[in-house]
Amino acid sequence: MNLTTAAMEAAYQENLAAFEAWKAKNLRLNMARGKPSAAQLDSISDILTILNDPKDCIVDGVDARNYGELSGLPCAKEYWADVLGCKKEEVFVGGTASLTLMYDLISKAYSHGLRNSRQPWCREEKVKFLCPSPGYDRHFRITESFGAELITIPMTENGPDMDMVEKLVADPAVKGIWCVPKYSNPQGIIYSDETVRRMANLKPAAPDFTIMWDNAYCVHEFEGDFVPFADIITLCREAGNPDMVYEFASTSKITFPGAGISVMASSVDNIKYISKLLGVQMISYDKVNQLRHVKYLQNKEHTLEIMKRHAQIMAPKFKVVLDTLDREIAPLEFAKWNRPKGGYFVSLDTMPGTAKRALALCKEAGVVMTDAGATYPYGVDPQDSNIRIAPSLPPIAELEQAMEVFCICLKLAAFEKLLNK
Amino acid sequence: MNLTTAAMEAAYQENLAAFEAWKAKNLRLNMARGKPSAAQLDSISDILTILNDPKDCIVDGVDARNYGELSGLPCAKEYWADVLGCKKEEVFVGGTASLTLMYDLISKAYSHGLRNSRQPWCREEKVKFLCPSPGYDRHFRITESFGAELITIPMTENGPDMDMVEKLVADPAVKGIWCVPKYSNPQGIIYSDETVRRMANLKPAAPDFTIMWDNAYCVHEFEGDFVPFADIITLCREAGNPDMVYEFASTSKITFPGAGISVMASSVDNIKYISKLLGVQMISYDKVNQLRHVKYLQNKEHTLEIMKRHAQIMAPKFKVVLDTLDREIAPLEFAKWNRPKGGYFVSLDTMPGTAKRALALCKEAGVVMTDAGATYPYGVDPQDSNIRIAPSLPPIAELEQAMEVFCICLKLAAFEKLLNK
Repeated sequence: MNLTTAAMEAAYQENLAAFEAWKAKNLRLNMARGKPSAAQLDSISDILTILNDPKDCIVDGVDARNYGELSGLPCAKEYWADVLGCKKEEVFVGGTASLTLMYDLISKAYSHGLRNSRQPWCREEKVKFLCPSPGYDRHFRITESFGAELITIPMTENGPDMDMVEKLVADPAVKGIWCVPKYSNPQGIIYSDETVRRMANLKPAAPDFTIMWDNAYCVHEFEGDFVPFADIITLCREAGNPDMVYEFASTSKITFPGAGISVMASSVDNIKYISKLLGVQMISYDKVNQLRHVKYLQNKEHTLEIMKRHAQIMAPKFKVVLDTLDREIAPLEFAKWNRPKGGYFVSLDTMPGTAKRALALCKEAGVVMTDAGATYPYGVDPQDSNIRIAPSLPPIAELEQAMEVFCICLKLAAFEKLLNK
Repeated sequence: MNLTTAAMEAAYQENLAAFEAWKAKNLRLNMARGKPSAAQLDSISDILTILNDPKDCIVDGVDARNYGELSGLPCAKEYWADVLGCKKEEVFVGGTASLTLMYDLISKAYSHGLRNSRQPWCREEKVKFLCPSPGYDRHFRITESFGAELITIPMTENGPDMDMVEKLVADPAVKGIWCVPKYSNPQGIIYSDETVRRMANLKPAAPDFTIMWDNAYCVHEFEGDFVPFADIITLCREAGNPDMVYEFASTSKITFPGAGISVMASSVDNIKYISKLLGVQMISYDKVNQLRHVKYLQNKEHTLEIMKRHAQIMAPKFKVVLDTLDREIAPLEFAKWNRPKGGYFVSLDTMPGTAKRALALCKEAGVVMTDAGATYPYGVDPQDSNIRIAPSLPPIAELEQAMEVFCICLKLAAFEKLLNK
């Protein structure tokens, strides 16, 4: 930004006036979370009636309406094995949220220990967890909730900084790492083949080191064709680390966020071990809903067709975000952002020390964003720079307004800092 | 039983021949668990299509299909408040299983502590839990899984032995009690008003002593009219123990066991506290299914009408059980059993030392029953006497066969013992 102080002052005043004008409109816009829009939900709402005959509830000799089948309906396991490229014996089908499966895994590690644990984590003097950042706040909060020390791992354009990860896993207190390998939250980065290979070949000191492989956006392209991904379970097995990874996914952003199905996949031994613990907690997840989803989504191929329909709704929203940033912010050069082809977010790094202020201004003008800092462990971004933009929920017209306001607030916060206001 | 040895020997031989004849038929009958029958599930399967218009998914300004509303849809809270007689602010609506809510509560007590805990239970030197027995094996297993010492409390015809409970809660290591207050599993006992009052007025030494009030059969009469029950949450509050109880229920035996909705109710403070912990584990349970259930079940009154339909299926099954026992076993006087008017089980106490043997014989003849001992802590019935009969699943014709076989096996085991075979 090569502006004179006077030019900056003029730009500041101009944006301040624009800000006040927006404020007067009493907007109530929300770009806080990766929530699908009503249009997107409507586009798949025929799933509500796909299972309507009680006779259809009986498959493979199992009545989906009744008790039983802890690890899920066989057809639901086949569906997920197809999507994830793993074996159906490696699959445990969950309820509406993969987040719950992740939480329950960490919770059981804490209270009972995992398959290769020497003792439950609550008996360890210290548990540390690696958190590639910016990352997903709900991941970090799970391990924080169980008292783990969260260690920030910088993200590169190829995924987490693997030099640092390889070094840190030599500490036996380091028990795991959070990963979103495809269209990472929030940066939309796809881990490179090299990153995935190095991850599978880690040699951690902790025998129960666990890669939490949250493949949340595995089929979530909104631009271009489906990008294939490696089966991390096979890679870990081949690297001599068969029990080191648990993979997660869900239909939250394929069908209904509040009422989909989820999956946890890992080695057959891990699934056996964890099923024994989960068998105390439940008799099974909702098999009627599993059946509904299998009938509706059918297989990976058909799921990708449905995702193409979602893409038609999502792509224009990301275009609004990027176009507005390109027009309003790019010339000033004080922020940079990614240009993802899938996932749910645009991650933006603004002038250090101004992210909180910018979002406070947004809030004042009626635009709610994900809290600044949320993408870092403990909700604290040491640079106060990263902002997660979630454009999926608002209709285009609202999104355009919200992005206008957002850019004004970004600029105001930057000018305030530069001008020592 | 006033038989001569010779008469017993003759009776033994007669039953042995009958047993061999049944065995030759290669039956495969199951009275192991309280699973509703296919007929019962069919009778409510119109719930599958009750929610078919996407527009109906939006209630009270909330889109049930999307993320949000951790503690459940307002209308689902109102439904459960109506059924349980508590306030809707005291309600947290869960997923398919109340068992999971119970597990999660104990799990969080263990890892984080409850609202009034001095420390998480995993930091306590010893945790003890009271288990009225015979009782529900899955309850006992939850607390056993977290390392608690299980203490057997004898059941009386009015509920748990309250003299013993009142004495034991003076021990600060005693952290709670499992209760099924209406149609207890397996005896079908309804706790007397006096028992409920004494329970609410306990003065436990542990500040976080918790009554796990599993009202699983709250509307599950199969004979006679609905039996009202007191609101335990109000009773505890009035007794100065507002945070001492968590009540649970579900639609598992109202709609679908694998795909219903569940509830946890407690003081507003407790619900606030536990919601904060549950908010790390999930974004919400399945609100589409909550809505489906509210539309279908409507309110307590309509739910009771549906339960009358279930009763028409259930009552004849209990009649088969009791008629067969009255005919085959009563004259011999070596066993006694209850005659419940609701719930899912008949509890039978046979000649001490013969329950395991009787059920092993049943298994040999192709009739699977709940394991002997399952109704006691650690799966060990000190008397080897109690057997839980679950007649809900098999059709009448199969049930008649299964009960014939069961009575023969009971007699064989008793004669074996009396004749020192």
